Amino acid sequence: MDCKKALAEAKGDIEQAIVLLRKRGTAVAERKAGRVTSEGAVASYIHAGGKIGVLVEVNCESDFVARTEDFKELIHDVAMHIAASDPKYVRKEDVTEADFKREKEIYLDQAIKSGKPANIAEKMVTGKMEKFYEEVCLYEQPFIKDQTISVSQLIATKIGKLGENISVRRFARFKVGDQGETVAVSKPEQKAE
Amino acid sequence: MDCKKALAEAKGDIEQAIVLLRKRGTAVAERKAGRVTSEGAVASYIHAGGKIGVLVEVNCESDFVARTEDFKELIHDVAMHIAASDPKYVRKEDVTEADFKREKEIYLDQAIKSGKPANIAEKMVTGKMEKFYEEVCLYEQPFIKDQTISVSQLIATKIGKLGENISVRRFARFKVGDQGETVAVSKPEQKAE
Repeated sequence: MDCKKALAEAKGDIEQAIVLLRKRGTAVAERKAGRVTSEGAVASYIHAGGKIGVLVEVNCESDFVARTEDFKELIHDVAMHIAASDPKYVRKEDVTEADFKREKEIYLDQAIKSGKPANIAEKMVTGKMEKFYEEVCLYEQPFIKDQTISVSQLIATKIGKLGENISVRRFARFKVGDQGETVAVSKPEQKAE
Repeated sequence: MDCKKALAEAKGDIEQAIVLLRKRGTAVAERKAGRVTSEGAVASYIHAGGKIGVLVEVNCESDFVARTEDFKELIHDVAMHIAASDPKYVRKEDVTEADFKREKEIYLDQAIKSGKPANIAEKMVTGKMEKFYEEVCLYEQPFIKDQTISVSQLIATKIGKLGENISVRRFARFKVGDQGETVAVSKPEQKAE
C-alpha cells in the first residue's frame, strides 16, 4: 500500500518512490520515538564456533509486532552486528561520564598541541568525539551488512515499516578467555513527544 | 574402559559400579579443581518464544574438550537451567558482601526473636544461609533436569568424564520487560592445588 502511494506520488519513478519511502520511514521513526516500548524479544547470536556470544533485548510496543518476521530479522541482525562490531554502549547518551571526559581530554590536548586557533581546535574535538561515538555506540556504528547506514537508521527503517517505536534496551557480549565482558543497558529515552 | 574397570571392581554389580564411577568422578573433580580454565565456549538459550534469554560462558582447559559433544551438552543444559531457575550468582563465593550481610541479619533477627538458645539460633542461621545459597547460586541450585543433584555435581560428573577442570565463568539473563537484568561473573577460584 505504502509503495503504491509512494509510486503514485513519484509519478511512477521507482528511484524517487524509494527516496520518498525512506524519508517517510525516518519521519515515522521520529514521530514514534519516545513512545513506551515494553514488549519485544530477546535474541542471541553465537559466533566462531562458540567463541563469541551475544544476547540482546529489543523492545517494541506490542507483542504482535514482536512476533513478526520483520522484527525477528531485525533482532537477529542486531545480535550478529554486536558480535562482529563489539560496541560498548547502546546510544551516545549511555556513554559514561568518565569515558566521555577521558576521550574529550585526549582530543582537547591533541587539538591544543596542534597549535590551531581555538575555533578550529573546537571543531577538531567535535569531529573526534563523533568518531568515538561511531566506534563505541551500537546506534552510531555502520551496520555490518550495509555500511552505508548506521544501526540507528536500520532501526528507523523498521519503525517506518512496522509502525511502532523500536529500541535496543540492553545487550551482553562474551568472548571466551577475555577478561572483560560487555554489558550495556540503555537509559530510558528522555525525548519528549 | 572406566565402566569395565568399575564393573570388575564391583564384581559385576552394576549398581555398585555406578556408585564407584560417581565417587571417582567427584574425586577427579576435586583433583582438577584449581587448574586454569581459559578455553571453553559461549552458549545461549532462548525461552518462551523469545521472552527470556540466557548467555553463558563455560570454561575448560583445552579447545579439544570444548568441542566435544559432552561439553556442548553441558553448556546447553546449564544455559537452560539458568533460564528456568534464575540464579543471581555463579558460586557462594560470588555473593556480594551486601547480600550476605542483609540475609544473615534477617535470619539472625528471626533466630533471636524465636527465643531459642544461642547454639540452636546459630544453627538456624547456618541452615537458612544454606537455603539462601541454594536459591541464588547456580552451583548450589538443584539441577532442573535432575533435582537429586546440584549444578555443581552435574559439572563434577563432566569433569570426571572429560578429565579436565570445568567452570562456569559468567552468565547474563534478560527477561523482556523486566527492569533488572542478571549479570553474574564468577571470581577466579582461590583454591590452592
